Amino acid sequence: MAQRIVTLTTDFGVTDHYVGAMKGVILGVNPDARIVDICNSVQSYDVLDGAITISQCYRNYPSDTIHMVVVDPGVGTARRPIVATTERHIFLAPDNGVLSLVYEQEERLSVRHITSDHFFQSPVSNTFHGRDIFASVAGWMSKGVEAIKLGEEITDFVKFAAPKPKAISDTQTKGIVIRVDKFGNLVTNLRPDDVPALFQEPTPAFTLVVGKAQVTKLRTSYSQAGPGELFAILGSMGFVEISANRAPAAALAAVNKGAEVNISFGGAAAAPPPAAPAQ
Amino acid sequence: MAQRIVTLTTDFGVTDHYVGAMKGVILGVNPDARIVDICNSVQSYDVLDGAITISQCYRNYPSDTIHMVVVDPGVGTARRPIVATTERHIFLAPDNGVLSLVYEQEERLSVRHITSDHFFQSPVSNTFHGRDIFASVAGWMSKGVEAIKLGEEITDFVKFAAPKPKAISDTQTKGIVIRVDKFGNLVTNLRPDDVPALFQEPTPAFTLVVGKAQVTKLRTSYSQAGPGELFAILGSMGFVEISANRAPAAALAAVNKGAEVNISFGGAAAAPPPAAPAQ
Amino acid sequence: MAQRIVTLTTDFGVTDHYVGAMKGVILGVNPDARIVDICNSVQSYDVLDGAITISQCYRNYPSDTIHMVVVDPGVGTARRPIVATTERHIFLAPDNGVLSLVYEQEERLSVRHITSDHFFQSPVSNTFHGRDIFASVAGWMSKGVEAIKLGEEITDFVKFAAPKPKAISDTQTKGIVIRVDKFGNLVTNLRPDDVPALFQEPTPAFTLVVGKAQVTKLRTSYSQAGPGELFAILGSMGFVEISANRAPAAALAAVNKGAEVNISFGGAAAAPPPAAPAQ
Repeated sequence: MAQRIVTLTTDFGVTDHYVGAMKGVILGVNPDARIVDICNSVQSYDVLDGAITISQCYRNYPSDTIHMVVVDPGVGTARRPIVATTERHIFLAPDNGVLSLVYEQEERLSVRHITSDHFFQSPVSNTFHGRDIFASVAGWMSKGVEAIKLGEEITDFVKFAAPKPKAISDTQTKGIVIRVDKFGNLVTNLRPDDVPALFQEPTPAFTLVVGKAQVTKLRTSYSQAGPGELFAILGSMGFVEISANRAPAAALAAVNKGAEVNISFGGAAAAPPPAAPAQ
Repeated sequence: MAQRIVTLTTDFGVTDHYVGAMKGVILGVNPDARIVDICNSVQSYDVLDGAITISQCYRNYPSDTIHMVVVDPGVGTARRPIVATTERHIFLAPDNGVLSLVYEQEERLSVRHITSDHFFQSPVSNTFHGRDIFASVAGWMSKGVEAIKLGEEITDFVKFAAPKPKAISDTQTKGIVIRVDKFGNLVTNLRPDDVPALFQEPTPAFTLVVGKAQVTKLRTSYSQAGPGELFAILGSMGFVEISANRAPAAALAAVNKGAEVNISFGGAAAAPPPAAPAQ
Repeated sequence: MAQRIVTLTTDFGVTDHYVGAMKGVILGVNPDARIVDICNSVQSYDVLDGAITISQCYRNYPSDTIHMVVVDPGVGTARRPIVATTERHIFLAPDNGVLSLVYEQEERLSVRHITSDHFFQSPVSNTFHGRDIFASVAGWMSKGVEAIKLGEEITDFVKFAAPKPKAISDTQTKGIVIRVDKFGNLVTNLRPDDVPALFQEPTPAFTLVVGKAQVTKLRTSYSQAGPGELFAILGSMGFVEISANRAPAAALAAVNKGAEVNISFGGAAAAPPPAAPAQ
């Protein structure tokens, strides 16, 4: 029990003392805790970005891991600190929806409003609950304090729906770019179930438009593609991605996170524009 | 004793092998050491930035933690490697003032010039004492080697004073921005004791000028403010900060670290400029 | 055996979930593994950059360390996952040459093609073998699974030669910049053996040209130099570096990685241009 793992998923960055202070508080409470950085460079204030990050990797961790997920633009207001427990994991987070994509994946879930302030640092600042509340509670939980000791169960916790693709017609679907990763890959919100035609054998003719790019190829590995070619690929997050071989697709398509993605199936859409009639 | 914590606060960055080499040396000496990254992205060569980072979080760590603080532009010259011990902690650093803000907070303190080179790696390079001296000594100390074994006590260690605010008049105080954090918050060197009027109830009229911004509001949480509004807030470092709600104050005020901050109290200063007289 | 160290050298960056997912898989297989980040900001797709990073620090780690080295632009193609074992260390990597500079340093070496897919995660994605293959195998090896269980030994593994300097004449040598580090130091591929004249006592006259800079001084520490002065120095990687005192040499010389470096010895080259004859 003493060697419990505590993970960090935050937007506190790597250039300040913030992450070091949180780690210090955890270890100050429980010197035997084992801290693992998942990601401290979640985009500032971006609750959806944090939600995606934790949802994409928490299941890989062993049972009884404590996940701190602190993207907290509402710190110091009435938004509640919460602890969510599933059959295998524990999550500490502000109640602002940052655990929404965890909730989506978990059938059995209990969420509590953390009110037992004797597990907090003292005093509690108005602007850094990552240190004063979440890290402190994580330290105590890593020593064996159970969620039931932290506060009452709640059912009105904040949960948002991730942006969903829309079927525009039988042959057209619209999605968005939910992340531009470190390589410049455009991760869309299109899952195979949203565009089953794309994964038929053989691949049908399709045109996917994103920014200034028209993508007409589906690949199964990055290095199948020629230089400068943009292609669609089923990425490791379970979503369709737009990528290029050893080059940032985001720059090639000139788009950022939030960009619209339109995919249409059928020969017509993928055909080149007709030549101008001869005069 | 074998599971001692060694923390890293350095300007070696995260894009090279430097941090990995230091960790390897620590673990090569003591495979059981537990290494914690506080911050490896201290601004290059910036001893004050490193001093602020370690001073803001070392007290959170448990007793007997060994803190490596390596911002070392004078590496390879006569500047001394030192070990500083307080009642609870151990610090390894170059003697260039990077521990100044630790010294400020500690009453009982012993500083030694590290000269016992059998605890160093061999050979010692001229440009990377983080690896060849500090990491190696940290490894040995994490195995139980005591400071007294490393060299003679000194009293002429380098200590600088952090930049202090100046009272310009009864109603005016001048400070500077000592850090722009990852969120773009402007951390000033103004503590509540420097501007007690600011924290009276009710908040008096005040004008804080920084860069192109005039700040006239004090907030107690980020999300109280409207979009694009700059406000003052007592930050988690114990200093007045200039912030905006989900936006980088540094960009809004168009300033960087080192910028001057002027705060004046009284209705006049906060009043808008008089309209030009009609002709 | 249970507390084995697993290190990470990858280009997965610090802004996404990728590194957190790999750590989760390692710990999911072996909750007692101890994970150490060497560097997750290897330049994207840059196998040589990854090769340099791991080669510069693996020897510092204790025996039986498991090093994951995942820079893997060919993921999902026929390129093989491999395990390389030396007398002291274990390396897991794609077979694309990223271990070339390790191979150079090791006399006894065994390389195996990893084919035992019961040690992989299931299913294996086409785009993230860092998580699905390498992290999973690292977890199993940290529990004691030996390399011989992973697949057959191979001898045709991919190995490239690092770019070597060329002697142009008795007094001229040409090299390149192999890395621009976090401080803007220009790390060349010139070792003392390549330019022995440079390290004679006293230092002979020389001119090193890189980008728009002419370097004529050799220093033994950064802070010996005046402001804005570029100088040569024997760096901690064992290569000649071009540096400046508290300033980025790369910006001062206006060059990037891959830039050509020319060094010539002899009074003539280093002499100032003659004054124009008086008319």
